[in-house]
Amino acid sequence: MNWVPDQGREVSTKPEAGASMLRLAEELFPICRSITGNGVRQTLQILSRFIPLQVAEVPSGTAALDWTVPREWNVRAAYIAKLDGTRVIDFEQNNLHVLQYSTPLDRIVPLDELRNHLHTLPEHPDWIPYRTSYYSETWGLCLTHHQLEALTDEEYRVVIDSTLADGHLTYAECIIKGEIDREVLLSCHICHPSLANDNLSAIVVATMLAQHLRNAKPRHTYRFVFIPGTIGSLTWLSRNERKLGLIDHGLVLSCLGDSGHINYKQSRRGNSSIDRIVAHVLRTEPGDHRITPFVPYGYDERQYCSPGFNLPVGCLMRSPNGEYPEYHSSGDNLSLLRPESLAHSLAVLKRIVEVIDGDVTYRSCNAKGEPQLGRRGLWGGLGGLRSAGYDQMALLWVLNLADGQHSLLDMAERSGLPFSSIRAAADALVNAELLEPVV
Amino acid sequence: MNWVPDQGREVSTKPEAGASMLRLAEELFPICRSITGNGVRQTLQILSRFIPLQVAEVPSGTAALDWTVPREWNVRAAYIAKLDGTRVIDFEQNNLHVLQYSTPLDRIVPLDELRNHLHTLPEHPDWIPYRTSYYSETWGLCLTHHQLEALTDEEYRVVIDSTLADGHLTYAECIIKGEIDREVLLSCHICHPSLANDNLSAIVVATMLAQHLRNAKPRHTYRFVFIPGTIGSLTWLSRNERKLGLIDHGLVLSCLGDSGHINYKQSRRGNSSIDRIVAHVLRTEPGDHRITPFVPYGYDERQYCSPGFNLPVGCLMRSPNGEYPEYHSSGDNLSLLRPESLAHSLAVLKRIVEVIDGDVTYRSCNAKGEPQLGRRGLWGGLGGLRSAGYDQMALLWVLNLADGQHSLLDMAERSGLPFSSIRAAADALVNAELLEPVV
Amino acid sequence: MNWVPDQGREVSTKPEAGASMLRLAEELFPICRSITGNGVRQTLQILSRFIPLQVAEVPSGTAALDWTVPREWNVRAAYIAKLDGTRVIDFEQNNLHVLQYSTPLDRIVPLDELRNHLHTLPEHPDWIPYRTSYYSETWGLCLTHHQLEALTDEEYRVVIDSTLADGHLTYAECIIKGEIDREVLLSCHICHPSLANDNLSAIVVATMLAQHLRNAKPRHTYRFVFIPGTIGSLTWLSRNERKLGLIDHGLVLSCLGDSGHINYKQSRRGNSSIDRIVAHVLRTEPGDHRITPFVPYGYDERQYCSPGFNLPVGCLMRSPNGEYPEYHSSGDNLSLLRPESLAHSLAVLKRIVEVIDGDVTYRSCNAKGEPQLGRRGLWGGLGGLRSAGYDQMALLWVLNLADGQHSLLDMAERSGLPFSSIRAAADALVNAELLEPVV
Repeated sequence: MNWVPDQGREVSTKPEAGASMLRLAEELFPICRSITGNGVRQTLQILSRFIPLQVAEVPSGTAALDWTVPREWNVRAAYIAKLDGTRVIDFEQNNLHVLQYSTPLDRIVPLDELRNHLHTLPEHPDWIPYRTSYYSETWGLCLTHHQLEALTDEEYRVVIDSTLADGHLTYAECIIKGEIDREVLLSCHICHPSLANDNLSAIVVATMLAQHLRNAKPRHTYRFVFIPGTIGSLTWLSRNERKLGLIDHGLVLSCLGDSGHINYKQSRRGNSSIDRIVAHVLRTEPGDHRITPFVPYGYDERQYCSPGFNLPVGCLMRSPNGEYPEYHSSGDNLSLLRPESLAHSLAVLKRIVEVIDGDVTYRSCNAKGEPQLGRRGLWGGLGGLRSAGYDQMALLWVLNLADGQHSLLDMAERSGLPFSSIRAAADALVNAELLEPVV
Repeated sequence: MNWVPDQGREVSTKPEAGASMLRLAEELFPICRSITGNGVRQTLQILSRFIPLQVAEVPSGTAALDWTVPREWNVRAAYIAKLDGTRVIDFEQNNLHVLQYSTPLDRIVPLDELRNHLHTLPEHPDWIPYRTSYYSETWGLCLTHHQLEALTDEEYRVVIDSTLADGHLTYAECIIKGEIDREVLLSCHICHPSLANDNLSAIVVATMLAQHLRNAKPRHTYRFVFIPGTIGSLTWLSRNERKLGLIDHGLVLSCLGDSGHINYKQSRRGNSSIDRIVAHVLRTEPGDHRITPFVPYGYDERQYCSPGFNLPVGCLMRSPNGEYPEYHSSGDNLSLLRPESLAHSLAVLKRIVEVIDGDVTYRSCNAKGEPQLGRRGLWGGLGGLRSAGYDQMALLWVLNLADGQHSLLDMAERSGLPFSSIRAAADALVNAELLEPVV
Repeated sequence: MNWVPDQGREVSTKPEAGASMLRLAEELFPICRSITGNGVRQTLQILSRFIPLQVAEVPSGTAALDWTVPREWNVRAAYIAKLDGTRVIDFEQNNLHVLQYSTPLDRIVPLDELRNHLHTLPEHPDWIPYRTSYYSETWGLCLTHHQLEALTDEEYRVVIDSTLADGHLTYAECIIKGEIDREVLLSCHICHPSLANDNLSAIVVATMLAQHLRNAKPRHTYRFVFIPGTIGSLTWLSRNERKLGLIDHGLVLSCLGDSGHINYKQSRRGNSSIDRIVAHVLRTEPGDHRITPFVPYGYDERQYCSPGFNLPVGCLMRSPNGEYPEYHSSGDNLSLLRPESLAHSLAVLKRIVEVIDGDVTYRSCNAKGEPQLGRRGLWGGLGGLRSAGYDQMALLWVLNLADGQHSLLDMAERSGLPFSSIRAAADALVNAELLEPVV
């Protein structure tokens, strides 16, 4: 007889979960974050209402591998005003209006000179671009292309009330101790100002996942890092080199709130456990998904997967960086976030965690021939035990592959059954003393 | 020039062979077999007219790995009668009417109680189901759904004249000694009562294959086992553990007489020699076929391929268990058997045996450059030697791959030529002293 | 953002190069070559105007592996004349008219006997076939089928003014010393009389490639061998056995001038470096191409890839042997050669050479995290450095894979970027002291 494999336990994608994540994103949205500065501190303080955070402050000038922690940047105001004082562009309206790391300025600037310091998106004339100049000192403002076209006076007053001075780079960790000290690294960047999908979405999903894990008593130790992009991961790596050997699996999280399907970018290794685990979860999940090989462009996986570290770290996204039109512009605002997408991203991460923590290798105690399941009450007839989370085929697969060489994930992949069903069948066989773990 | 590979020797699928196998199936059909009892003994006695059989009788209660040989069951009569004595269901009409291993009974049973002991197939109301209760003591009868609907009296007399008592489990082996003691295991179950495709078809094909091999002086030793399903293979395995290391290849044979194409289910290993050999034969055989990976459900391959044994045993079938509507019902009767299917199954097995026995590894005696075939009378021009069973391309392939690393099957696979053509070319090269076997 | 990989440097397929190769082929076309004799000597003398050649003369009777160098054959005249002296078939018209290695003859032959010594192509009645009888002594002539049909006299005078006598087999080598003594073997057969694509095309392309390499100061040492087919490569192999270990890559060149696309036949190993290199070049080359696995039929790769040598030698062709209608007939004449095909074949070979010589393995000097490219002037923004022969993605790929395990070709394959782009990015990184070669 041919068996339709059961589809595993439904992971609920509760609409409430999505709504509460959206509310948190709304609270974080107006803050002007950058790779350093008070915006990051304010953000972490809000997150610490939900999960315990260890905040690190790393002084400017500290070496971070081949890089150096830059000066700290803070901005209080920035505007372009007509000479009569009317503000035509104002940071108060949208913090994307200021070029990140812009040096301070307060002077009358002729329009011709001003134009060289203005950034727009001609192809999306209603959106303000998100631009940075972290490592090359200059001043600048960003505006919509329509706004640029409306600048017709000969001169404008330009004010950028910013400070670029020795200070600190701020990041935070949330560590959830598990039964074992082998670690799972979850990393998301917190350096973007008022952009929603990139990356408030991942920040709120990571926060809720951490909250869930604190109650779940996981097997692995989970380490969440909330860091500014590039310089943050470089700094974190340089300060944690000796601990990296503990990392069994890792994910960079970004762009998890839009309406697109899940995209998983594999680790540099391409065949890490995390790559196989995510592929399995996505394969048994309804709906589309896409898995793409590693490329050395994207988010902080670039640093985690640099050749000297080569950590088993992939990147989980919905619409990837650069592949949605609103990317890195004011179009990436709260209207892009869907509560059901946030909830689904969280649910997928919970299933990934379920596999990470449940993937154990067993050896059958009765490996020669099939054990007689009938006298142990385990022969319910095929299909008869689905209420227990598995069916008879899952039992037979686990028994057949429990040779100490196949992990439960290997069994799920070979059988085509969902991991949860294999895990439940293994639990029943452990109870019947038919399996023992391989240590 | 591009060569159309020759298609190998035709293996005749003589209609006479099919007709004589069908006659043997007809003789065996009426016998009421079970996992123990006189039906099995009677069956083996008939087979021993064709091939020498070593019959084993294993006492009830004998341990067989995690199982125990059950009591022996025999049934002489079984019927449901109206109170006036008219029999409405009678084992005499069809031995499927009795639930296998039914306990004895002779009493008046109210219809309501009786219904709980009756088995039908509502979706096929004219067929009697085949049901067993080997390891859970109960009584029962099987009937067509139309027969069930015709039971309208308030009470019926139910008689099951069976015995369930200490006795023996019976199985047989037919061993054909070859040049070497490395073994090929061929296993088929003999426990089904009047069912034709499952498994009289395989019993008669195995018998004729054994008869053929006795005359063929094979290289390997061939061991045919005729056993009851599950408990039979468990019993055989438990009594032969020390010999299992001799098995190089194995096949479970079942359902070999219906009109479907060949289905091969791979061994648990998935890349055993037998898996490659069967795939090669089927690829060079006209007509459809299907190869499916191992699953831990089916016939006795479940036991041979349990993790503690993991023998290189696949399963050769036409329509597989559960995939034809008549499976495990009175619909699986002699009308399902086609002589040409039986003959084709036998022919395919003969080609498999040909590869098993002919797959040798050679080393070229002139490995540097091509030897000059012209002065050895082997350069007949391309295509010129087909009458000898091979063409010039087969010669060139064998010479090119005879590095002591490629077996003849490897060569057949790499060249796309049929094994028989490669084998014939190798024979010619051995005769010309251009090849020597690797020992 | 998704990057469209840049398409690498254009290798010019200058029409002049094609025209000058065609002129050389025109000069070589009328010469009557065979596996031995003055035609080969005359051919090599012409080639030596372009490249330095070391000519070898191997006496008849010399052992060459399983073969023996045959007697030398030369032919001065051959014709069929009516008894009145009118020549109806004349070697002067086309040197294909004489069967190669035909023994001498001068006598009146009855038409019936004569027919047994005449070779035609009935399916192409206007073409003269190319036929040989090197190792079986006989006489014969080749003619068009229309010419055969016009022979109606009862007797003809047949004159073959040939000599078959002890002499020499002639071949030549052109060795271009590189920085290292590891070798690249390029082999083409020079034994065909007036046939153009097979193989004057490859002879002229090889000559021009050798000329190019003499000026290019290559890293590897390049060894071109111009040899008669089969017996020539066997002779060369038997005289150079001890040097064969120096060969890292090899190609047999043939049929490189017709209008077909490139066909590459892999080495026997199937995964040699040369197989990967050619596949990469063809993949990044515009236009169709085809890659086929090794078969032990074709050109001298049969000898180089015999199991006792198993050299990493593939075969580069346009229309392969036997796959164009004019093959081995007078239809394979100068009209088949296209200057643009000759030039394209040369260009592809130059790109192959570029990969062979440029495929080095590096280790990053800053393997932990990405080095800061900005302060080294290497962060031109994505796509911004294409004028330097590479883009930012090529830089990132090289840095990411420079772990001492990936060669530049590995990087090109994994990234999907052309080798030339990866090579240029690596050069920039070497200049910036970010990479060091693995020795």
